Amino acid sequence: MGAIGYFNGEIGELKKLKIPLCDRSVFFGDAVYDAVLVLNRCPFALDLHLDRLYNSCRLTEIVFSMPRDTLKSEIGRLLAEADVGETMLYLQVTRGVAPRKHEYPQDATANLIMYVSPIAVPPRDKRASLIRMEDLRFQYCNIKTTNLLPNVFAAQRATAVGATEVLFHRGDRVTEAAHSSILMLKNSVLVLPPLDELILPGITRAIVKQLCEENGIPTEERVFSVDELLNADEILLCSTTKNVLRVFEVDGQPKGGKDEALAMRIQNIFLDEVYKQTGVRV
Amino acid sequence: MGAIGYFNGEIGELKKLKIPLCDRSVFFGDAVYDAVLVLNRCPFALDLHLDRLYNSCRLTEIVFSMPRDTLKSEIGRLLAEADVGETMLYLQVTRGVAPRKHEYPQDATANLIMYVSPIAVPPRDKRASLIRMEDLRFQYCNIKTTNLLPNVFAAQRATAVGATEVLFHRGDRVTEAAHSSILMLKNSVLVLPPLDELILPGITRAIVKQLCEENGIPTEERVFSVDELLNADEILLCSTTKNVLRVFEVDGQPKGGKDEALAMRIQNIFLDEVYKQTGVRV
Repeated sequence: MGAIGYFNGEIGELKKLKIPLCDRSVFFGDAVYDAVLVLNRCPFALDLHLDRLYNSCRLTEIVFSMPRDTLKSEIGRLLAEADVGETMLYLQVTRGVAPRKHEYPQDATANLIMYVSPIAVPPRDKRASLIRMEDLRFQYCNIKTTNLLPNVFAAQRATAVGATEVLFHRGDRVTEAAHSSILMLKNSVLVLPPLDELILPGITRAIVKQLCEENGIPTEERVFSVDELLNADEILLCSTTKNVLRVFEVDGQPKGGKDEALAMRIQNIFLDEVYKQTGVRV
Repeated sequence: MGAIGYFNGEIGELKKLKIPLCDRSVFFGDAVYDAVLVLNRCPFALDLHLDRLYNSCRLTEIVFSMPRDTLKSEIGRLLAEADVGETMLYLQVTRGVAPRKHEYPQDATANLIMYVSPIAVPPRDKRASLIRMEDLRFQYCNIKTTNLLPNVFAAQRATAVGATEVLFHRGDRVTEAAHSSILMLKNSVLVLPPLDELILPGITRAIVKQLCEENGIPTEERVFSVDELLNADEILLCSTTKNVLRVFEVDGQPKGGKDEALAMRIQNIFLDEVYKQTGVRV
């Protein structure tokens, strides 16, 4: 089955759905979104994703008045039409329709876009490669908006050279990847870049951090440099559709691979949590 | 009459038009645009705007295969349905429809969105006010894309305090405004910030510069600081829908106003050109 879409209550084949041309997401990228891993119609960490989505609305002053329970029931209605197996639930809240003008009307009615589509989560033994790229994005990266063109350029460049993702850095400081978080293992510690306006607060990242703490693996949030990352014991890439992947190469040079045991332990702890929460048997 | 819209050849009331939900402008702001002043159905400096639009496509690798003559004839078809008087022609080229994925298919077919709507160009004696704001945008500001959320935030903030526009600066360096160029007069010289990836190459700005040179007013392109601007003889704000406006106030403090004669001369030279090219009699 193909992707099933949703627009303001209407459910149908995604590629046949339409939205008003004057939706502000078309003119300004004036919209926020989130994406959720779904296994057998059971969304993983849904509440954390909805927390972030409502928070993105707050940060952009998008007035999304649908209560969380109603949103969950709409999600349930959509998932009931979807494939079983591995899928991704995408949610986008736009500021709504208005005559084009930078300033937004305070009374705009938000539009809700969703879809669910099959995905292939990479196996945990897939290894990832990165290419370095200066992070030229805006300084609102903590908000998950559809202003994604720099991320598109970066992902395109990575794919063109056969890499999994980019390693974004601002000067010497490592930030993240085009659509993933970057973490590292150093002396048995999980090191994460601190969350500020240059980094998206990744849900997979947050769960990995919490699970490490619960399992006696020390974690540390601090700024680190490209050089430090390149000399890390392991480099980890994580996102909703990738889970946790080990990086074996940056700019064609072998990197990481010095603490495989801990890296694999973290991968396993994370996947166990996914399977536990979604009720999938392995 | 309200705004008349256009989507891939279909013309109709703008607010009734729809586009496919899976257009990449919806998911990624993966689109470029331009806006043209139109007087009595005659677009001003259309070729310069189309040059920039096609160049924006080139810079984003959006494959827009419509020849310029065909585009002009489609514009003509749209303008024929529009109001006479002062209007704005808006053009947007999106990368097209594709299943959502950061990387774009090389064979996507671009979609063309246009509309024309009445505007009120401010009278030349309207004076503008600015508020200072750190420029947190990405470093692709030379491309006119629909990744405009930081510009939306800035315009919203300016309007909220009753200002005309923001004065964006990166650290100490003046860049531009949320949807206008910022210039200054200093010792009878028109000073413009240099065009790089932090500044949109404004069409009004370019025409003003050329007209000054043709009329014996010296011009200079160079980086200048916020302090220099605040101490300029005159601060000018220009854009497609504002023409050239004099700034009288920044952050509530009176500024400029020290070379009114030259500022007004530039305004008049510019408006004369608009009227000449559009055949409007004054």
